[in-house]
Amino acid sequence: EAAVRGEEQILQMKKKVECTKDAKATTKLADIGLESSVLHLKKSAQSSSAPPLVYAEIRSKSNPSKTLLFYNHYDVQPAEPFDLWTYPAFEGVRRGNKVYGRGATDDKGEIASRMHAVASYIQETGDVPCNIKFLIEGEEEVGSLHLPKYLSIYKKQLACDGVIWEFGYVSPDGRPIIGLGMKGLMFVELEVQGPLRDAHSSLAVLIENPAWRLVGALSTMRNSDGVITIKGWNDHTVDFTAHDLKLLRGEPFDDAMFKKEFKIKKFASGIRGNLEAKKALAGYPTCNIAGITSGYTGSGAKTVLPAKATAKIDFRLVPGMDPKHQFNLLLKHLKSHGYSDIRARMIHKEAAARTDPLDPFVANVTESAFQSFCAKPIINVSNAGTGPMHAVYDALKAPCVSVGSTYLYSRMHSPNEFARVDLLKKTARCMCRIMTTLGNSVN
Amino acid sequence: EAAVRGEEQILQMKKKVECTKDAKATTKLADIGLESSVLHLKKSAQSSSAPPLVYAEIRSKSNPSKTLLFYNHYDVQPAEPFDLWTYPAFEGVRRGNKVYGRGATDDKGEIASRMHAVASYIQETGDVPCNIKFLIEGEEEVGSLHLPKYLSIYKKQLACDGVIWEFGYVSPDGRPIIGLGMKGLMFVELEVQGPLRDAHSSLAVLIENPAWRLVGALSTMRNSDGVITIKGWNDHTVDFTAHDLKLLRGEPFDDAMFKKEFKIKKFASGIRGNLEAKKALAGYPTCNIAGITSGYTGSGAKTVLPAKATAKIDFRLVPGMDPKHQFNLLLKHLKSHGYSDIRARMIHKEAAARTDPLDPFVANVTESAFQSFCAKPIINVSNAGTGPMHAVYDALKAPCVSVGSTYLYSRMHSPNEFARVDLLKKTARCMCRIMTTLGNSVN
Repeated sequence: EAAVRGEEQILQMKKKVECTKDAKATTKLADIGLESSVLHLKKSAQSSSAPPLVYAEIRSKSNPSKTLLFYNHYDVQPAEPFDLWTYPAFEGVRRGNKVYGRGATDDKGEIASRMHAVASYIQETGDVPCNIKFLIEGEEEVGSLHLPKYLSIYKKQLACDGVIWEFGYVSPDGRPIIGLGMKGLMFVELEVQGPLRDAHSSLAVLIENPAWRLVGALSTMRNSDGVITIKGWNDHTVDFTAHDLKLLRGEPFDDAMFKKEFKIKKFASGIRGNLEAKKALAGYPTCNIAGITSGYTGSGAKTVLPAKATAKIDFRLVPGMDPKHQFNLLLKHLKSHGYSDIRARMIHKEAAARTDPLDPFVANVTESAFQSFCAKPIINVSNAGTGPMHAVYDALKAPCVSVGSTYLYSRMHSPNEFARVDLLKKTARCMCRIMTTLGNSVN
Repeated sequence: EAAVRGEEQILQMKKKVECTKDAKATTKLADIGLESSVLHLKKSAQSSSAPPLVYAEIRSKSNPSKTLLFYNHYDVQPAEPFDLWTYPAFEGVRRGNKVYGRGATDDKGEIASRMHAVASYIQETGDVPCNIKFLIEGEEEVGSLHLPKYLSIYKKQLACDGVIWEFGYVSPDGRPIIGLGMKGLMFVELEVQGPLRDAHSSLAVLIENPAWRLVGALSTMRNSDGVITIKGWNDHTVDFTAHDLKLLRGEPFDDAMFKKEFKIKKFASGIRGNLEAKKALAGYPTCNIAGITSGYTGSGAKTVLPAKATAKIDFRLVPGMDPKHQFNLLLKHLKSHGYSDIRARMIHKEAAARTDPLDPFVANVTESAFQSFCAKPIINVSNAGTGPMHAVYDALKAPCVSVGSTYLYSRMHSPNEFARVDLLKKTARCMCRIMTTLGNSVN
């Protein structure tokens, strides 16, 4: 039940992403009184496939010295398989308290509640309590590949004092979950070349098997307790502060239900107890074999010595780990263990990000959520998953906080995704409070 | 260039095997004067898919106390892909010195040369110089699954003083290769169950990854020199005798060409030099990863923690290793290293077999081959590959020797397989000499 975002099926699904027509999005933002535009990257080899950013802003007449930025995305996961949908995937059918559709919650519901908050503020007062900016990208579901480039080009235009992250979860008992961070990710492919072509396995006495080399290399990277043994891997990691630990203690986490859900008897790496599990989710690095393949993998037997072996490893990174630096440590490790022939390729990288829990913006969001949801917020030091939070933080140097309308079990990425109307309303109210408080914080 | 037989693509191809009509085979054997029959297994759950054996015999009037048995097979590898064949795969087209077709050499050419030897003997003398038996099975290309059962039921009928194995190679420079043994094989599947279903990889901090467990278990089974570290693995192995070593020294083996063929810089496991390589091929056990798979193996990235991991391991066994005993050692090893949750399944097993080089039957075959091929025979202590030689030896207690007409590069198992007419003729002469010598050896 950790509030884990699904960034599954990323990069390779790129082509499948369904995009909202950006023109339509800008029109709606303009309708409620914002200046909106579509931002592009200059054409280049790297950017030719970059979807545009939707951008919109409105300047506050009363408090133009403070700016709130909403980061969202207009792309969605593919809606397939369509036959598992009870209501059409792209019509937004409302039934009772629920609106059904692909993107209903991830991320159209979140966008809608934010637009609604701004619209109602303008309608009521003719102004907004602080400057408001919308940054709506089109590649979140496929790894936000071009976001760093957009951010570096448009960072002046996007400057702000606080970022509301694209999603925010609500627990089953109605408590808003305030997210302060995300882990980083380094997705690496390791490839070992064996003989020129598959050989008869009787030749294993003379020909080195690339699958054995891969197994050998992998087994040097972690000890039996799951601790990463790559030299220097944890040298720059930052421990939890006393305040972080206090927050972790306050986070609900049901060990028994988690184990039952995955049918496991115990946690990995000798982790015991509730707090340790939460610490692990929020702040322990991982080295996970996401995939491995070599030789014959059909049913029955084939006596073959494979020509190639490949593994896909995803390392979750924690604050203090720079993906490029960690990748170099991995290369050095392979070399020093006699595996310099193994080709390591970085497929995706993103550093971890954490907003200081003591930042006044966190207090603003927490208090606003408390008032709007009428339930004590849960503060989540860091999500176990990864998103482009570090890219945003790095470019804008503003606290990023996750808060929103997404019920934990609202079937994001699955058929019959829905948004809860009651939570959309509470979230819209929450956004109004956040704007107001940020506007009032002018000093 | 090791004389390696292709038992690749075995079991799983069972359904694809093309069978000669057994009725046709028995007719031809009867035509040359043998009593022939088709042997079946009694119907049972295990034997329902057993193809019949073709059996034929002729008793010698002059020397009925000695018996020679030809072991062959009527099944062939699938002929696909048909479009790579220059001549039809099943017509036996002759062009110059070559007869093209699936099975031209493996194993129809070998059968033909033996039948021709027997037929011409009968034609010339009205007798055979010793009793002759043909055992032609239908599952050699798929692991000879039912052969042990047939042998145990029909062992009296099949009793003999010497077995000529189903194939025999001829080196590129025309020297007959006399094969005295084959390694054993134990093909095992290891399966590790992880969480109930694939999980998001961010949960790798809490859920043990079955691919890591598999890598961990595998890495305990072999050291970095490729030596199998399963306790007791080599306890009953038998060293090469001084005579074996003499034979090995006499075997040609081109290290440089082997390395070039597979584009490898050095041999595995620190093996150096020509003799060591030949010793390895003939008598070193292996533990080979024939296949491994877990998680996402497509292109790009998917951040998944797999529910399952599987490896297929083929162990080549040497004399002294009983597959059942070795399998129990493997199970004990897994248990004692904390991997009793890993499910090990034996898919195929066959012990190693070696005929004593000093057996008079070997001298008979060697001398007969020398005379018939007019070239000094190469004596191969053991093939690096595996065949059902142990099953035959175990049931019949007779020396098994491999000699025949198969040019090393006659594309067995590949399109445009061919037999060389000159070698078929030499082999037929060789078989006549072997029969004569065996008949004369009556004492």
